[in-house]
Amino acid sequence: MSESTELRVPLPDLTAWTCPAPLRDQPRVVMGHGGGGAMSAELVQHIFAPAFGGQTLSQLGDSAAVSLGGVRLAFSTDSFVVRPLFFPGGSIGDLAVNGTVNDLAMSGARAAYLSCGFILEEGVEVSVVGRVAEALGSAARVAGVEVATGDTKVVEAGHGDGIFINTSGIGLIPAGVDLRPERVVPGDVLIVSGDIGVHGVAIMSVREGLEFGVEIESDCAALGGLVEAMLAVTSDLHVLRDPTRGGLAAALNEIAAASGTGVVIQERSVPVPPAVANACAILGLDPMYVANEGKLVAFVPREHADAVLSAMRAHPLGAAATVIGEAVEAHPGMVVARTGLGGTRVVDLPIGEQLPRIC
Amino acid sequence: MSESTELRVPLPDLTAWTCPAPLRDQPRVVMGHGGGGAMSAELVQHIFAPAFGGQTLSQLGDSAAVSLGGVRLAFSTDSFVVRPLFFPGGSIGDLAVNGTVNDLAMSGARAAYLSCGFILEEGVEVSVVGRVAEALGSAARVAGVEVATGDTKVVEAGHGDGIFINTSGIGLIPAGVDLRPERVVPGDVLIVSGDIGVHGVAIMSVREGLEFGVEIESDCAALGGLVEAMLAVTSDLHVLRDPTRGGLAAALNEIAAASGTGVVIQERSVPVPPAVANACAILGLDPMYVANEGKLVAFVPREHADAVLSAMRAHPLGAAATVIGEAVEAHPGMVVARTGLGGTRVVDLPIGEQLPRIC
Repeated sequence: MSESTELRVPLPDLTAWTCPAPLRDQPRVVMGHGGGGAMSAELVQHIFAPAFGGQTLSQLGDSAAVSLGGVRLAFSTDSFVVRPLFFPGGSIGDLAVNGTVNDLAMSGARAAYLSCGFILEEGVEVSVVGRVAEALGSAARVAGVEVATGDTKVVEAGHGDGIFINTSGIGLIPAGVDLRPERVVPGDVLIVSGDIGVHGVAIMSVREGLEFGVEIESDCAALGGLVEAMLAVTSDLHVLRDPTRGGLAAALNEIAAASGTGVVIQERSVPVPPAVANACAILGLDPMYVANEGKLVAFVPREHADAVLSAMRAHPLGAAATVIGEAVEAHPGMVVARTGLGGTRVVDLPIGEQLPRIC
Repeated sequence: MSESTELRVPLPDLTAWTCPAPLRDQPRVVMGHGGGGAMSAELVQHIFAPAFGGQTLSQLGDSAAVSLGGVRLAFSTDSFVVRPLFFPGGSIGDLAVNGTVNDLAMSGARAAYLSCGFILEEGVEVSVVGRVAEALGSAARVAGVEVATGDTKVVEAGHGDGIFINTSGIGLIPAGVDLRPERVVPGDVLIVSGDIGVHGVAIMSVREGLEFGVEIESDCAALGGLVEAMLAVTSDLHVLRDPTRGGLAAALNEIAAASGTGVVIQERSVPVPPAVANACAILGLDPMYVANEGKLVAFVPREHADAVLSAMRAHPLGAAATVIGEAVEAHPGMVVARTGLGGTRVVDLPIGEQLPRIC
């Protein structure tokens, strides 16, 4: 048992680990660390990125662009812990497919293969696992991606929560496509593909037993085809992002910070369906911070903006696409909304998450 | 919110799902469904494979061989739920790297990129997350793999168990390498790379508070380099498998079933260290069914067996490699052990898992 120690990993000194300063006030993990906002970013920047030490991880995008055998691939992972497992318009099964397919699409890649890791809680009904698997398989067929490999673990009752799913995915990045927030420049036009806030409000409506008069269905969908239609206009899109956890506000703040440009949005142009607006008003939420799962934002060079917008509107998942703002030289790294009354307000990066476990 | 329904996934009919016959006696998930034995295989064969419908998943190997952009890749995923998080010789962090690196190595691929998805339980100490991340990063550096992309989710206290980690990995499969159980033919020599049963007993010793007189450290290690050394002798190895959950017995049964050949092992040749044998005797376990995490079994064409064995012994992780049996025409699909007394016994596929959550 001792012949191979030189290739074994030395155990880290368990007593010597020092908490990085920005995390010291919070010695235990709280829900906000999983919210996709500032607290999530702190974990990545101060714990994961230094420990893992890779070049790629530090890009912090939805997916990584990597090279293998001379081929450029997008590679992405997401764990899904949504509660409840079934909600209006979807389930953890199709969410697990669309979440990862969309992360790959934000690199310009059409998802080719998915992996699928289930962590089941002892006692969950086999029929629930079966229905989730069927939803996952259906979503994979709609998205045109193959589930190539999988894994199942079971944890004792009370040590999990029904079903958690991790999916990872790989896909080819087409030649000439280079989608990164660093490519955003002042003058770029900001387009959103449709109504925002829908997925988060749909989850909230069932979780909290709230009735908003009208049933709101999640917008959960796979965006690979829409992105292909946009790239058919020009490979020179600058950045795409799907505004999931933390909503439009988190996505735009990440892009502003990474690109060093300012972002201005026209608040009245942001498409918020009345049912979402009403629900947010009742609950005291800002739709800008509510999660989406079938929408994207794009920063597009001004000369291509009209053509890209037309291509989006010709696609069923982009029929309501609209321009909501632009990248500017002023206030670098900041997102500012022009309100309907002619004023402005800063749209901050959320700290944690107003609604945990929406994906 | 309704413009895009044709690209949305129809919700499966939640009332219509019918449990496949072999699973009907067990309407709820039990620990054994995650044990890597017959119950795990039932879930895959009767629920996941039909629902996902892919060609690749039905191969059921440690990793999938897929083609992308003209390049042949191995793609694999594993979730890690080991308890406790730190154990003699390792932690969930290095286990999460080595488990996936080894699954890729069993396809002949050197792992290039890993994804890493954390599911944290609210309340876990940030310092524990930090130490696990350091162990994960160290293991990745030792294995020569880059952590390229990640994700973090947090679930409420009591709905998780400290830290779960999913890693997925991709790597190039070298030209001419085609490792599949279907390639095993009677006459192939069965080699194991070293002592068996070590990881499982190491976990058990700390979990159950048992003392065996001598501390047993997990054999957790990355096998990419050892596999490269073996493939340098000949690309014509037939199959490799790392005997993790379900131990040597599960790995050999899967190979026998998929290849349709019989497997005979000489029980006295199987290297079981005295400390493992003693622990198993005390606990009433069979070392053949105990998990390993830094060992492999290989079926090698007879004409290459001596050279492959020499190459393995020249590598630190294969120094104790030894021949333990062969593939035979008799009893197709079955694994039979010749006992020290000249008798034989059937080595069955385990049903569940004698020790849950060892990886």
